[in-house]
Amino acid sequence: MQLLMVSLNPLATLGGSSGDRSKWKRKSIVTLALTILTSSQSILIVWSKRAGKYEYSVTTANFMVETLKCALSLAALARIWRREGVTEDNRLSTTLNEVIVYPIPAFLYLVKNLLQYYIFAYVNAPGYQILKNLNIISTGVLYRIILKRELSEIQWAAFVLLCAGCTTAQLNSNSDRVLETPVQGWIMAIVMALLSGFAGVYTEAIMKKRPSRNINVQNFWLYIFGMIFNAIAIVIQDFDAVANKGFFHGYSLITTLMILNHALSGIAVSMVMKYADNIVKVYSTSVAMLLTAVVSVFLFGFHLSLAFFLGSTVVSVSVYLHSIGKLRR
Amino acid sequence: MQLLMVSLNPLATLGGSSGDRSKWKRKSIVTLALTILTSSQSILIVWSKRAGKYEYSVTTANFMVETLKCALSLAALARIWRREGVTEDNRLSTTLNEVIVYPIPAFLYLVKNLLQYYIFAYVNAPGYQILKNLNIISTGVLYRIILKRELSEIQWAAFVLLCAGCTTAQLNSNSDRVLETPVQGWIMAIVMALLSGFAGVYTEAIMKKRPSRNINVQNFWLYIFGMIFNAIAIVIQDFDAVANKGFFHGYSLITTLMILNHALSGIAVSMVMKYADNIVKVYSTSVAMLLTAVVSVFLFGFHLSLAFFLGSTVVSVSVYLHSIGKLRR
Repeated sequence: MQLLMVSLNPLATLGGSSGDRSKWKRKSIVTLALTILTSSQSILIVWSKRAGKYEYSVTTANFMVETLKCALSLAALARIWRREGVTEDNRLSTTLNEVIVYPIPAFLYLVKNLLQYYIFAYVNAPGYQILKNLNIISTGVLYRIILKRELSEIQWAAFVLLCAGCTTAQLNSNSDRVLETPVQGWIMAIVMALLSGFAGVYTEAIMKKRPSRNINVQNFWLYIFGMIFNAIAIVIQDFDAVANKGFFHGYSLITTLMILNHALSGIAVSMVMKYADNIVKVYSTSVAMLLTAVVSVFLFGFHLSLAFFLGSTVVSVSVYLHSIGKLRR
Repeated sequence: MQLLMVSLNPLATLGGSSGDRSKWKRKSIVTLALTILTSSQSILIVWSKRAGKYEYSVTTANFMVETLKCALSLAALARIWRREGVTEDNRLSTTLNEVIVYPIPAFLYLVKNLLQYYIFAYVNAPGYQILKNLNIISTGVLYRIILKRELSEIQWAAFVLLCAGCTTAQLNSNSDRVLETPVQGWIMAIVMALLSGFAGVYTEAIMKKRPSRNINVQNFWLYIFGMIFNAIAIVIQDFDAVANKGFFHGYSLITTLMILNHALSGIAVSMVMKYADNIVKVYSTSVAMLLTAVVSVFLFGFHLSLAFFLGSTVVSVSVYLHSIGKLRR
């Protein structure tokens, strides 16, 4: 909420020319979309868990998400071609030089998802949720190193606060167990955070390398490789289940809604990468995490803890400082 | 630690003239003294609790603290008179106009200490520790309103973080109970925070009203009224115990050390009020709280929680932002 309030103030970020204003408008809309889609995603997950354990293969669902995103990109392209004709920037055909970098994010995510199965030997699921906040720091560091974009000292302070605030908001009576994580668990968590941060930063680099290139073409190639790598994951992890019970075994209405939601938020992430950046993405998903908790109070009768209030306060101050830091740069 | 590192950098706060440098040096020393005395105070309290329940009357100990501070101020004055002679600024005699404001802080503390007995009907002791962090906010607000001193927007953000960070560092598995505090409990906690903040801000106003006035004279008058009000507290709360068992019943070596420590840190607070301000005092005592926990790990084998690490991180960022905020004003 705070994030949106801040970024909805055009004077805070822009000089005021009409081109800047339309850019700012687009940035705000994609950020808002990502925040809403991410929170509804978590709510769907809670809902599906309440409806009973889900019996479908997660890898097939991931494959369907990539396929749907690919189809949506093609549909959008078809409309554009009909309206504007095929141009250098919106044609689907590509050069090896352009396409060679597209498999990298999908590959990094595949490695990360495979590692995820092994980290649970060292950390339990709630502990892993807490360690995932290391993503915030790794994204900031890689954003600085790889994209060579600078954050002001206040924005760095805000980023550390974002990580501390999100973790605080998730604290519960068992959280201290995470401190007993063995060294292997810490190393894996850090490697996974780096892989995830690297994939995000790499996607941004790809999307921004050629700003005039139509985003739907870029998405198409990104998601094609997503489909390929997820097909590999099906073979590695769920071959037996798919062969015996069928590809769509255990799919329900909630599963379908979750796939739809993941596809839309995937596209929103791409748009945030093209029109905003990884930092906006991290803030957006962090605020979504807090929104989810508040909505869950009404939907599922969850109780908010004192730690949640304190963490939310720290995250809100972080969002405020991030916008202040930008102003003064 | 962070606080000291920051304030030990003279370039961060001052232009560099030799008068400024000696002021800065004095400010650093009194801040360091307050931080160390406050942490050792808490460590003495933990030690005395471990040594068994203390059987002495708290009001008589408070009276002894005021008496000792008064005696130390007189001793310091005696030295100054011998060295410099009696001047307008260091003579003990005073005007009604000057002395009339001195009873106010002592009176406010008396009311606050009496209220403390009633708040436990609504909040338990660990809950009260958490609610005491409201002092941070009330001090900042009253500092702004009464002393009309401005904090930059970054410094306000830092102050909110200080409160959230200190509370986070103190979280334990029972902390959520504080959310069930009835309205009366909240009102009393807020009133007590305001009384304590008001007493602090009023003390600063008194100490700074006449900068050339010798601090030992100001302390003498402050502590004289402290003695009077604590004598009243003895009569109200512990008359029977003192009448039956004697004034010094239950005093031990630890009790004596605690009285000595309280007296010295009381004088350090006065010095911080005269040479620095309430904001420095709040930061100093907050950092002392964190230091105490770390020292307790070594002394008493305490375990630090994840919440403590997160809270300490937020407090450290807060100290950093406070110093950055000053620079940019």
